[in-house]
Amino acid sequence: MSQPVHMHASPVAHLSVGVNAIAPLDLRLHDALRHAIDRKTKPLGSLGRIEGLALRIGLIQRSLRPAIVRPTLLVFAADHGIVAEGVSAFPQVVTSQMVANFLAGGAAVNVFCRSADVALEVIDAGVATPLPRDPALVSMPVGPGTRDFLHAPAMSREQLDLALRSGAARVAHHAELGCNTIGFGEMGIGNTSSAACLMSRLCDLPIDICVGRGTGVDDAGLARKRSVLARALAAHPRTDDDPLATLATFGGFEIAMIAGGMLAAAARSMVILVDGFIASAALLAAAALERRVLDYCVFAHTSRETGHRLLLERLEATPLLDLDLRLGEGTGCALAVPLLRAATAMLCEMASFESANVSDRG
Amino acid sequence: MSQPVHMHASPVAHLSVGVNAIAPLDLRLHDALRHAIDRKTKPLGSLGRIEGLALRIGLIQRSLRPAIVRPTLLVFAADHGIVAEGVSAFPQVVTSQMVANFLAGGAAVNVFCRSADVALEVIDAGVATPLPRDPALVSMPVGPGTRDFLHAPAMSREQLDLALRSGAARVAHHAELGCNTIGFGEMGIGNTSSAACLMSRLCDLPIDICVGRGTGVDDAGLARKRSVLARALAAHPRTDDDPLATLATFGGFEIAMIAGGMLAAAARSMVILVDGFIASAALLAAAALERRVLDYCVFAHTSRETGHRLLLERLEATPLLDLDLRLGEGTGCALAVPLLRAATAMLCEMASFESANVSDRG
Repeated sequence: MSQPVHMHASPVAHLSVGVNAIAPLDLRLHDALRHAIDRKTKPLGSLGRIEGLALRIGLIQRSLRPAIVRPTLLVFAADHGIVAEGVSAFPQVVTSQMVANFLAGGAAVNVFCRSADVALEVIDAGVATPLPRDPALVSMPVGPGTRDFLHAPAMSREQLDLALRSGAARVAHHAELGCNTIGFGEMGIGNTSSAACLMSRLCDLPIDICVGRGTGVDDAGLARKRSVLARALAAHPRTDDDPLATLATFGGFEIAMIAGGMLAAAARSMVILVDGFIASAALLAAAALERRVLDYCVFAHTSRETGHRLLLERLEATPLLDLDLRLGEGTGCALAVPLLRAATAMLCEMASFESANVSDRG
Repeated sequence: MSQPVHMHASPVAHLSVGVNAIAPLDLRLHDALRHAIDRKTKPLGSLGRIEGLALRIGLIQRSLRPAIVRPTLLVFAADHGIVAEGVSAFPQVVTSQMVANFLAGGAAVNVFCRSADVALEVIDAGVATPLPRDPALVSMPVGPGTRDFLHAPAMSREQLDLALRSGAARVAHHAELGCNTIGFGEMGIGNTSSAACLMSRLCDLPIDICVGRGTGVDDAGLARKRSVLARALAAHPRTDDDPLATLATFGGFEIAMIAGGMLAAAARSMVILVDGFIASAALLAAAALERRVLDYCVFAHTSRETGHRLLLERLEATPLLDLDLRLGEGTGCALAVPLLRAATAMLCEMASFESANVSDRG
């Protein structure tokens, strides 16, 4: 009561994503879920990680009979000013070309989503080069790519705010359609540079161990990327008490939209599927704003991109899959969805020792 | 031409499974598959293990456009005389109770197969206690469980031959229905003891590192299990030049049926999905008869059962999943099928740089 109450009490309270509304998990359900799993017709603990996954989803959905409904992958695409410094193996135009490929259904993430019956939405978060007109494209660009953060913050605070709210709005849209499980993918030439800087700053780690080859720069390219990013970090003072400032300085529009979307998804008690290095960096930023978002996450896979393993350690996460993927797009999320379905089906459909008249241990 | 030609030239030539008919992979297709994968719209190698999986399935199916058709899981159930020595945490009657559970659709493998759209067949390979009458049960028991191999070979050579041919016959049946991908599951209280002895003998490894807790014996139970199996191995002379003798001595009816089924599946150029410790032990026996069977295998998961990791090393296998499962039944196979579908869809449906007009590396 001694605290003054005003509209913007928290640095993120002004976001429509409802950051302060993320509820803690109801741990009273933990024992009931554990008991239900333990009475299934199988040796105790013998379904390993599938059991932990079922328990997590049950806690998130506050249900002993959780279900994966309308799983959806949102792929946010945006460009990055930092590519002017030669940090990527591919030219910037590939971002828009790949958006066209997503819309035509020919990218890896399309194929994996179709294969696993996952809905897919493509969002223009701020692509620099022209995109095809297509009714399936959700167009909400914050700008024509970010600024080159070697020389200036990647985006303004107003742009960041718009990006966070845009991501949250897409999540709200799908939640209203009944979706309760949401993954986040991205496309953006240069975005491993952005993610590496966010990781370095938010985890207080040397940039060199956060930087990898991205889409595949060679040794000389990797050395240049490291040098550019070290200089960029040196150019911007630390803002440890203000993660939004860090996100505005080094982020991308797609990364900020994912962060906003994740916060909104947690506020709606949705299962958040976390993809690879970029999505994990977005989560890092979201968790810096509201740590409780982590309770709602299922980590899909460990990427081969340098830095992801260490980032996962910092997030205390053990992903479901480890398939040496390093593509992004949300491909790891799509591949993990069948495991989530299997875990919830285990809880809802498997017989118990009692119901099946199976003898327990002798 | 100097070799005398007769009907039973090979120790396994008399099996109807066609062991000698397993064709080598056509490696001329390797480069064409690699090229097709490399031209997909993604950085080179960025789909990691999914790329290797697509390549393997393409080689097995001898096609640049492979597909997973009618994936099927055969669950073989049988009992083991060795349980009389107190090697299992559960009573023998659980084998038949779990068969009833499979037929009622309530076991983990039922749930995972439904979730992943995998067909499931349950086979009585030799269960000791009465089973329900059910038209869905394929009844081909070799006998009412094996003999206690502490005192006598588990089965006769005639029983082994029948088991091998029975497994092969089920695979032939499903191949004729159009199935091109087949997994093998098992249920049999005591069968980790059988698998551990096969592993010890066929890999020439000390029994202690092959023995695990199975369904969950406690420390005292584990010590007894080790002691019993060490005595059983000592009781039977080595038959290194005759893997069929080793399989007859320590095997189970379900393990032998799986071995026969795997050989038949390879002879028909089907994808063989290898589950956990028991199925891998069956594969070890099959590979001792005809090493080429390994070319047709996709390893579904690494089990937490002691010994499986080492067995996989001996088989030079890196499974797709590592989820701490130790249930058997074929549960790991069912969970892996969506990854196989994703891999083949990648090869068949993903756009190439050329077809999508995406720029390659700068």
